[in-house]
Amino acid sequence: MNIVLCNCPQEKADSIAKELVEKKVAACVNVIPQVKSFYHWQGELCCDNEATLIIKIRANDFERLQKEILQIHPYDVPEMVELSVSNVNEEYLKWLYANTGDHNV
Amino acid sequence: MNIVLCNCPQEKADSIAKELVEKKVAACVNVIPQVKSFYHWQGELCCDNEATLIIKIRANDFERLQKEILQIHPYDVPEMVELSVSNVNEEYLKWLYANTGDHNV
Amino acid sequence: MNIVLCNCPQEKADSIAKELVEKKVAACVNVIPQVKSFYHWQGELCCDNEATLIIKIRANDFERLQKEILQIHPYDVPEMVELSVSNVNEEYLKWLYANTGDHNV
Repeated sequence: MNIVLCNCPQEKADSIAKELVEKKVAACVNVIPQVKSFYHWQGELCCDNEATLIIKIRANDFERLQKEILQIHPYDVPEMVELSVSNVNEEYLKWLYANTGDHNV
Repeated sequence: MNIVLCNCPQEKADSIAKELVEKKVAACVNVIPQVKSFYHWQGELCCDNEATLIIKIRANDFERLQKEILQIHPYDVPEMVELSVSNVNEEYLKWLYANTGDHNV
Repeated sequence: MNIVLCNCPQEKADSIAKELVEKKVAACVNVIPQVKSFYHWQGELCCDNEATLIIKIRANDFERLQKEILQIHPYDVPEMVELSVSNVNEEYLKWLYANTGDHNV
């Protein structure tokens, strides 16, 4: 499995999280609220209120996740950063694979 | 060292964090509050209020952490996901090793 | 690119985040508020209110980030833990490199 970090406007977080789980792209999405993001945009220093999504997916599903997020995320260039997982408890991994995969199964 | 992510009910977070540090399994545990978790459980889409624990452990202590968490965590299948660390400042690493290890030392 | 986690006192978080982005050490810094940290310090179990910074940097900029943080962070031994990134969407990566690098460019 892998973990992907993605930030989005606070008001969009729940709907993005729900859709990823409903479509079985992610087994679980945690929404961290009230995150302040500092960044440059077109030369200006910006500070936005966002939510950080911690998305749990199958190891080889990054492309699939990317496609789904690009369809439902309001930004032109959303952040999707996959972190390598070195260890996970087996029962959780089984649960993750049982709750991801083909949407219609 | 490594970092392990674990989610738990908000009301259990502090006691789990404290116990892991007291037993020197973790050098530090950060508790992120008010996290909303979306996931499937037995075919139902669920949304719970949780806390996310960011647990800092020695590189080879995942099994030990797993044993401790399974004893004190209320879920049958808690999430324990270890992320690979590619770099850390040396002074912090020294501090981490000085504050983990045998509980009775 | 890589992601670095760093904790700091809540009241210092915004200024540290802003400075790292202004100096183009980081393309983006997310500040997670109201984090409770449990840890040992000189044998005592402590619990502090902190913020967790999620810092997005170029893959080889950990040393540079470390130098900057050590100048502006109030702790003697701040935590700077770099997580390995296994995947990132290309457009975001391009944006990250366009917004980091030499401060005066």
